[in-house]
Amino acid sequence: MATINDIGVAAAINIVTALAFLLAFAIFRIQPVNDRVYFPKWYLKGLRSSSIQTGGFGSKFINLDFRSYIRFLNWMPEALKMPEPELVDHAGLDSVVYLRIYLLGLKIFFPIACVAFTAMVPVNWTNKGLDRLRHYNISFSDIDKLSLSNIPNGSPRFWVHLCMAYAITFWTCFILKREYQNIALMRLQFLANDQRRPNQFTVLVRNIPSDPHESICELVEHFFKVNHPDHYLTFQAVHDATKLSELVLTRKQMQNLLDYNINKHMRNQSNRPVIKMGFLGCCGEEADGIKYYTSVVEGLTREISEEKQRLRTGTKSIVPAAFVSFKTRWGAAVCAQTQQTRNPTEWVTEWAAEPRDIYYDNLALPYVDLKIRRLIVGVAYFFLTFFFMIPIAFVQSLANIEGIEKAFPFLKPLIEVKFLKSIIQGFLPGIALKIFLLFLPRILMQMSKFEGFVSTSSLERRAATRFYMFQFINVFLGSIVTGTAFQQLNSFLNQSANDIPKTIGVSIPMKATFFITYIMVDGWAGVAGEILRLKPLIIYHLKNSFLVRTEKDREEATDPGTIGFNTGEPQIQLYFLLGLVYAAVSPILLPFILVFFGLAFVVYRHQVINVYNQKYESAGKFWPDVHRRVVTALVVSQLLLMGLLSTKHASKSTPLLLVLPLLTIGFHKHCKNRYQPAFVTYPLQEAMIKDTLDRIREPNFNLKAFLRDAYAHPEFRVGEDPEPEEKLESDMSPPELVATKRGSWRNTPLPSKQSCRDIP
Amino acid sequence: MATINDIGVAAAINIVTALAFLLAFAIFRIQPVNDRVYFPKWYLKGLRSSSIQTGGFGSKFINLDFRSYIRFLNWMPEALKMPEPELVDHAGLDSVVYLRIYLLGLKIFFPIACVAFTAMVPVNWTNKGLDRLRHYNISFSDIDKLSLSNIPNGSPRFWVHLCMAYAITFWTCFILKREYQNIALMRLQFLANDQRRPNQFTVLVRNIPSDPHESICELVEHFFKVNHPDHYLTFQAVHDATKLSELVLTRKQMQNLLDYNINKHMRNQSNRPVIKMGFLGCCGEEADGIKYYTSVVEGLTREISEEKQRLRTGTKSIVPAAFVSFKTRWGAAVCAQTQQTRNPTEWVTEWAAEPRDIYYDNLALPYVDLKIRRLIVGVAYFFLTFFFMIPIAFVQSLANIEGIEKAFPFLKPLIEVKFLKSIIQGFLPGIALKIFLLFLPRILMQMSKFEGFVSTSSLERRAATRFYMFQFINVFLGSIVTGTAFQQLNSFLNQSANDIPKTIGVSIPMKATFFITYIMVDGWAGVAGEILRLKPLIIYHLKNSFLVRTEKDREEATDPGTIGFNTGEPQIQLYFLLGLVYAAVSPILLPFILVFFGLAFVVYRHQVINVYNQKYESAGKFWPDVHRRVVTALVVSQLLLMGLLSTKHASKSTPLLLVLPLLTIGFHKHCKNRYQPAFVTYPLQEAMIKDTLDRIREPNFNLKAFLRDAYAHPEFRVGEDPEPEEKLESDMSPPELVATKRGSWRNTPLPSKQSCRDIP
Repeated sequence: MATINDIGVAAAINIVTALAFLLAFAIFRIQPVNDRVYFPKWYLKGLRSSSIQTGGFGSKFINLDFRSYIRFLNWMPEALKMPEPELVDHAGLDSVVYLRIYLLGLKIFFPIACVAFTAMVPVNWTNKGLDRLRHYNISFSDIDKLSLSNIPNGSPRFWVHLCMAYAITFWTCFILKREYQNIALMRLQFLANDQRRPNQFTVLVRNIPSDPHESICELVEHFFKVNHPDHYLTFQAVHDATKLSELVLTRKQMQNLLDYNINKHMRNQSNRPVIKMGFLGCCGEEADGIKYYTSVVEGLTREISEEKQRLRTGTKSIVPAAFVSFKTRWGAAVCAQTQQTRNPTEWVTEWAAEPRDIYYDNLALPYVDLKIRRLIVGVAYFFLTFFFMIPIAFVQSLANIEGIEKAFPFLKPLIEVKFLKSIIQGFLPGIALKIFLLFLPRILMQMSKFEGFVSTSSLERRAATRFYMFQFINVFLGSIVTGTAFQQLNSFLNQSANDIPKTIGVSIPMKATFFITYIMVDGWAGVAGEILRLKPLIIYHLKNSFLVRTEKDREEATDPGTIGFNTGEPQIQLYFLLGLVYAAVSPILLPFILVFFGLAFVVYRHQVINVYNQKYESAGKFWPDVHRRVVTALVVSQLLLMGLLSTKHASKSTPLLLVLPLLTIGFHKHCKNRYQPAFVTYPLQEAMIKDTLDRIREPNFNLKAFLRDAYAHPEFRVGEDPEPEEKLESDMSPPELVATKRGSWRNTPLPSKQSCRDIP
Repeated sequence: MATINDIGVAAAINIVTALAFLLAFAIFRIQPVNDRVYFPKWYLKGLRSSSIQTGGFGSKFINLDFRSYIRFLNWMPEALKMPEPELVDHAGLDSVVYLRIYLLGLKIFFPIACVAFTAMVPVNWTNKGLDRLRHYNISFSDIDKLSLSNIPNGSPRFWVHLCMAYAITFWTCFILKREYQNIALMRLQFLANDQRRPNQFTVLVRNIPSDPHESICELVEHFFKVNHPDHYLTFQAVHDATKLSELVLTRKQMQNLLDYNINKHMRNQSNRPVIKMGFLGCCGEEADGIKYYTSVVEGLTREISEEKQRLRTGTKSIVPAAFVSFKTRWGAAVCAQTQQTRNPTEWVTEWAAEPRDIYYDNLALPYVDLKIRRLIVGVAYFFLTFFFMIPIAFVQSLANIEGIEKAFPFLKPLIEVKFLKSIIQGFLPGIALKIFLLFLPRILMQMSKFEGFVSTSSLERRAATRFYMFQFINVFLGSIVTGTAFQQLNSFLNQSANDIPKTIGVSIPMKATFFITYIMVDGWAGVAGEILRLKPLIIYHLKNSFLVRTEKDREEATDPGTIGFNTGEPQIQLYFLLGLVYAAVSPILLPFILVFFGLAFVVYRHQVINVYNQKYESAGKFWPDVHRRVVTALVVSQLLLMGLLSTKHASKSTPLLLVLPLLTIGFHKHCKNRYQPAFVTYPLQEAMIKDTLDRIREPNFNLKAFLRDAYAHPEFRVGEDPEPEEKLESDMSPPELVATKRGSWRNTPLPSKQSCRDIP
């Protein structure tokens, strides 16, 4: 077991790493050349058009004003300065609610840490429970003396831990409830103050049954004219534009290559760039790069406009789903919340997400497909979680020194160098696992996509749930009860229900030092690395040197990124879990978690203000998930404490502890009934108020024109922009994403053809 | 273990009992004096006004036509004759759907029994697995040779049982799905063909928030005028009429006593009946019975009309709930399915049940109360189920011979008679348990009432669920794993998840003979007893001799009763459970279950046609519960078979058996998504069709007048009837329940005062 010294060394290393990252960031961010990496949000909002320039030519790229280096930690107070309502305007409600998860952590754990250190640490420390172990030559450290392990079996001091468990439960529930209430209110307020948006009037209808006598467009029109006669306004058919998307993507890649060649030519005007036509551009005939790619791009452009024409005029590509818009928000709210026909699997209605949140590829999936896909993904996820070690172990067995030598004999002399050999042998087995873990969020995201969700926000929410489950089983349980997840599952099935919490509970205090190290590496250094944005920095500079010619190109090269709910939130939840589990057992963990929450809050607040550009605005729709997971963590912590205490001959406390999970589950149900509807439905009263206000303010507003093409496939919307050929001339064309005051997506009605033939 | 002979004897006894009941019924039913007991339905429908008379004076009471005795089993084919659509018209959809549960049993178990007897019985019989037991002097019977126990461990013959399990699962699911589909269709058809009813236009609003500036009536009016401007029509306030109900009940009892005294006087004109005023009419001053009760009834009548006046004019008694009616079914469907305000616990809307189905006492309960009550009832039910033996054991310990001798010393010589002593000692301990089990459905019903459901149908559904759970734990598990429910719970908690199905599974084959006897006693004899209606028969004749003076009194003395969903359905479900569990283990049980289902179907069909008068019509809303319980039974049977086979060293089959519960749960989810909405919501398309038809047929129908007072408290509706004083004169007044074509409750608009002051 680690001593305080070991922990001290680990802490020092991690603090130095984190400080190095922060220092690097502080230096990089004030270099004008990095401006678009560290402040892309301001460019997107149109508040900054090019890098700040302080002096002559050199200062265009490097900051020569040495005074600014002294104030290098300035960003921290600056990040905290912007008040919350302004931040909602600046970055949207999603980001603000996301930041509140960190605040929630501080609110929950700060008082708990204070109480734990004043009340529990002395109780644990002034015991000699662990001294017994000396007789058995089992070593222990001072850290362990702070934990519950130090109390001898059956001691009356366990009442303190019991009271602490009650205090933790009530405090956590109190904070959770207040937070749920606040965020529900913020969401409702946000929706109430929100400007007119297409999704307020629109409902997504799926599983439109086929009819031999009518086309889908006619069916939709007739159905809603009959069943919502007073409220129905118009609809937007959904096209299956997969081919178009592919073409556009290819054209973009070709355009990049063309740009690269043109840039090459411009730098070296004497000879035109030459490319090879064969495999990967390594062999084959030679050709003029610029000419070749220009012709390819032109061909693709032609194909794209043909495909667009085909989609616009034909009806064969229309899928059995539609965006139906209503005259009032009230009408849309009614349609979204009611069942339309006898068969609940046909004409399924739901609130349409924002246009930019829609994931168009899944709109066409029929009901039965969805069920089958859900089943397949469920099974796949089960195997992924419990058996992911099998393929990795297989790869590891292949990727050893001998395997490499066999596959690439020419590397043999290099590998046989002793120093390199030990590095490879040490790192290689781990690399397969690391790569897998790096790709895991993407795999989970692909699973969600396959499962058939129709909005990016729900895709991310589902992926987050799965990622959390994976971490819970493989990181949390996997570290405590050593062994693969499947071995655990098997042993749990063969244990009695009473024994499971015992088995896990017993090992908890012993793993405290491991988790402290984990928090420092994954939490502290990870967060500091996040603010440095090393990957976007490199990619931006690469793009900048090879692809960028115009200011618009530079804008496209800027990748502000998003908060990444599907990876970030499960990570935070792991800290909630660790904090709650260890609060009553080894409170020494709490300060480390508090530092994480504090640092992460400042860093992410800075990023939200200056960097991230959310792809959609769901108005904090993910909060019920956050709440549910914290409650789950609370219940898990209670069960494990119960298991731990029962092995400590303090079984008298079991009935008292058994009440806690029941109370917590009751609390969760109450919160769910009380606050969850605010995140799912749109109350009619709210809709009516907004409708009435609108009618008074703008009685003659042309809603139909406003809604037209709002939900057209993104490629159609892009298609109305100037073609790439024209782009070459227009050097200062407006940025592609028109910035509006809040949230912002392009909603100016574009004059386009009716996407479905007129209906008699 | 019982031999075939023992079973034969038990079967003979039970068959004789059942036949005796049936014979008694056959004789009783053709006596004109019992006509109102055995054919009350026809009286209620107005198709029979007085007993069939075949001859002179004597034949008014006793059937002297001896030919009719020969055809005494005629009722059986007659009961089966009426076609289903006619039965829907005659008795309502609830009864027809209820009968289909028995049919479902026949449909599921008849083919299974055929296959089991042709395929499995030979496989089980031609083994010598049980012969081993001879060495250990363990006796077994021929019955056991038919079961899975007879197959030696690890035999490949278990593949037959595995296939059988698959066949049972697929067949049961197939039948269940088809039945769910049929019944959903029947329900939708029934609702579509239904005549105009107040509940189609009405929504129950609860938890209306209080407002210091407006009364509840004003609040409701304003809220719905604002938020449903195009559809809102009117509303009906709900009064807290508990006091009125009590007064009416007391008057009814007093009226009965008055009638009794008048009757007594009429029979013996010479002396007027005298009553004593003291405790229970046993002591105290004497008074003239007729005069006394007349004055009491008059006083109560005055009080009742005062109370009614108070409720009508005052607003203090109005509770924060209201029945809000809409101009169209569409408007009501929308309001019922949507959330009204930000706070989901205020202005909670739901479909109003039929007026006669409403349970008025619970309408006023606020949201928080409901939650607390649910918690209390949940805890109470847990203790009732797992600890019910404790108070009974306590009573049993008191109710022994010595206890009785101490309490009533004068009984001592009687008790000391040896014969009586042994009877008392034998029966007394059982009596406390029997009484408890008799009262259990009532206790569960009271629990549901306390829990706060607002319609009788939902009360019955919840009580049925609880009764089923109780039977599952205490009858099914309690018989298999001997011991009280709490001991079981404790041992399950201390066993591994894998071991629980094993423990139960092993004992299953051994308990086959016990359950065969149970089926014969509880099922066969019970059903035959049901048709005899002994209790209503006795009560009717008692009432007839003491209380009845007019034809109307006789009508009131008739108690047709109802199907009793809350007691009947859980009983059937127990047979489904037994059938599914034993189908693959000891198929010998199946014929007994088939006989039960067949007999019960005929008997209940007869009762539905001739006797029962449903108190409400929920259009088969209980079917999802029925379906869910059969699916649960199927999953339980699969798990137990898995446990049983794993102890038989046939663990190779475990993975194959593990697939079955997963498939079944998937099937259940599919059915739930696909068919359950038909039992919960009213699709807008259906509402629109009926609205449109109505508008065409009767464009000038006065809906407001039609709906007025439809949902008034029943005492208000009764109050519009002639007062009891007038009743004395009107000998042939129309029956209280006006019979309409189907279902039938009084819905003629009564001219009454507006129950809430007019709103400006």
